[in-house]
Amino acid sequence: MLPFDLFEYQNRLRETKQRMEKKGLDVLLVTDPANMNYLTGYDAWSFYVHQILVVMIDEAQPIWIGRYQDSKGAKTKTWLHEENIYAYPDYYVHSAINHPMDYMANVLIDLGKDKGNIGVEMDNYYFSAKAYMQLSKNLPNATFHDAELLVNYVRMIKSEQEINYMKRAATIAEQAMTKGVENMCSGMRECDIAGLIYYYMLSGTEEYGGDYPAIVPLLPTGENTAIPHLTWSERSFEEGDAVIVELAGCYKRYHVPLARTVSIGKPSSKLERITPIVVEGLQEVLDAIKPGMTCGEVEEVWRKSIKKHGIEKEARLGYSVGLNYPPDWGEHTASIRAGDPTVLQPNMTFHLIPGLWFDNYGIEISESFRVTERGCETFTNYPRDLIVKDPFMIHPHGGKIS
Amino acid sequence: MLPFDLFEYQNRLRETKQRMEKKGLDVLLVTDPANMNYLTGYDAWSFYVHQILVVMIDEAQPIWIGRYQDSKGAKTKTWLHEENIYAYPDYYVHSAINHPMDYMANVLIDLGKDKGNIGVEMDNYYFSAKAYMQLSKNLPNATFHDAELLVNYVRMIKSEQEINYMKRAATIAEQAMTKGVENMCSGMRECDIAGLIYYYMLSGTEEYGGDYPAIVPLLPTGENTAIPHLTWSERSFEEGDAVIVELAGCYKRYHVPLARTVSIGKPSSKLERITPIVVEGLQEVLDAIKPGMTCGEVEEVWRKSIKKHGIEKEARLGYSVGLNYPPDWGEHTASIRAGDPTVLQPNMTFHLIPGLWFDNYGIEISESFRVTERGCETFTNYPRDLIVKDPFMIHPHGGKIS
Repeated sequence: MLPFDLFEYQNRLRETKQRMEKKGLDVLLVTDPANMNYLTGYDAWSFYVHQILVVMIDEAQPIWIGRYQDSKGAKTKTWLHEENIYAYPDYYVHSAINHPMDYMANVLIDLGKDKGNIGVEMDNYYFSAKAYMQLSKNLPNATFHDAELLVNYVRMIKSEQEINYMKRAATIAEQAMTKGVENMCSGMRECDIAGLIYYYMLSGTEEYGGDYPAIVPLLPTGENTAIPHLTWSERSFEEGDAVIVELAGCYKRYHVPLARTVSIGKPSSKLERITPIVVEGLQEVLDAIKPGMTCGEVEEVWRKSIKKHGIEKEARLGYSVGLNYPPDWGEHTASIRAGDPTVLQPNMTFHLIPGLWFDNYGIEISESFRVTERGCETFTNYPRDLIVKDPFMIHPHGGKIS
Repeated sequence: MLPFDLFEYQNRLRETKQRMEKKGLDVLLVTDPANMNYLTGYDAWSFYVHQILVVMIDEAQPIWIGRYQDSKGAKTKTWLHEENIYAYPDYYVHSAINHPMDYMANVLIDLGKDKGNIGVEMDNYYFSAKAYMQLSKNLPNATFHDAELLVNYVRMIKSEQEINYMKRAATIAEQAMTKGVENMCSGMRECDIAGLIYYYMLSGTEEYGGDYPAIVPLLPTGENTAIPHLTWSERSFEEGDAVIVELAGCYKRYHVPLARTVSIGKPSSKLERITPIVVEGLQEVLDAIKPGMTCGEVEEVWRKSIKKHGIEKEARLGYSVGLNYPPDWGEHTASIRAGDPTVLQPNMTFHLIPGLWFDNYGIEISESFRVTERGCETFTNYPRDLIVKDPFMIHPHGGKIS
């Protein structure tokens, strides 16, 4: 039933404990839903309420503590034994009186795990300032340490099974991009294309279905291509529109992002000028990547390449990617940018996104890749160029569910 | 371009400042993306990096501080003047060295807004423990106060325009439910149905398109109907399966959730027995609701109704709903549960979800409603009953994009 065998989960837990040991941690409180899934297999949209996984250096199994109505999922959808699942009553949920961390602290006290060095994921979306305050107040005998990204760093190097899942995600990403672009023409609305992209992202292929991506498809159009994180509107596409499509295929929560820029009709001279610069820079980076390089060195290849054309890029060039939940598919560990000391190793996986955003236009042509023994290989195989669409070539299906 | 006129945004800001005044706050730091949207119109998937809106009691306009590549969106997609948009460089993003809150604190110091009483949203997903620590460290002259939900409470009573948007969201929810259920039959996979639901949620109607919901469609099947927050799998539906579908239509970020339970083929005797109890209880609650009642009193109607049949419900019966972003469409203010003192007022909006989860099955039949002058009215009009499907009645379209 679980996406990985028990051996793989045990390996992950062992590596986590090794990192805990190095940091002198007795207990690690995992709040990141991706880290929780990574260590136990737990997968449900229950992270909108507080839930934690307690990893103890001297216990074989972690403990899951969450909402009562979600605890059955933790019992049946993870490898943890039932006695390691604790549930708080519903009156702790979004309450002005009771906070779930009060309950959780009491469990730790009951188990005698309220002393010593406790690691917490300080900058995680799912570890709020209030959660930390309540925990500190309730556990006066503990010393808290920032263990942000401790598990994320274990996640960076993927197993063969994880790579296989990412390959499936890649096929789904290619398909969603193909169908989205195919139907992008004069008169179709942005929301219709977003709907089609979702349909193909989730229905997947005959062999396997897709999962929801941690970020919705981003679809800035026209002058809004200068603003990378806009979603979609109800506006109809028009001849002359540029559209940036950034999406990810997702399989068993593993992501492969893919971005392309589309011109509906003749591209602007600006887009025509910038495209080969981006494509060339991307190719030079992909050619250069090999194990042993640092992320900072990878970025330098890009920087030199575009500098020849008088271009600079403010934002980072890429980031580590894989297993994740909303609101981000990035792993928050390595970034491909100046000075990042992360040394590339085989089966690290990245999204390389040389997006450039100017005053009233922008371009994104991206590739997700894995580091191989000697270089790298991209996950998707999709034309690496500006996509030019005939604005009046309406797709035979009309982009509608018949 | 903005979904509401300037007058409405000004009203919201004025009410926010009145609440700040009551709490003695000089400054409010808004991190909740829904609150940021509510006050400024800002709408982008950029909340995966730190961003804040600074509301100052003695300044006409708030200040937005976020990532450089997102600042153009804040300039062009809100009513704020350009000089009130501050942007931090990309090397603050997911960095081990620089934290965005350090930059933000410096902006506050430069503006002389680093003293006095500063409110922060302590339990928000987008205000991490680390964000709070950095802020406190950098602003030693400020006294911090928990202002969690301050703006959320302003959001509770909807304007006419907000109700109109929710009515559109309701139409979208009905359509997505109709199409999802219509195609649910033996041989279709859960992921196919999830894809179809998304297609109809986003493509919306001819007149208006849909937005992404803050929670993905939940689709537990078979014995998993006992676990409310599971999403979907690649499994094909079989005769005899029960399926719970919980989804929301979303328009301009306003949500109307809707849940139904479906039996593919003859329902189990358990489901047949529990359904009329839930439907009756739901009807009694809807009949009883009127302004002036407390949320606790509403829950009591339900509790008494199901108690006649020897049933108890552990989880809350409902919650305030409206404008939101992932990971939750609930507003985290009022809950319909025992003891909640919130007094119902016209144009408050709730999701009433009398879900019951037992050992190996569950049921959800929900309604979203608004409180009216004399009672309440539901947003959607969808058969309020267990939906029984002929497992072999394959929909003519086969649920595929042709």
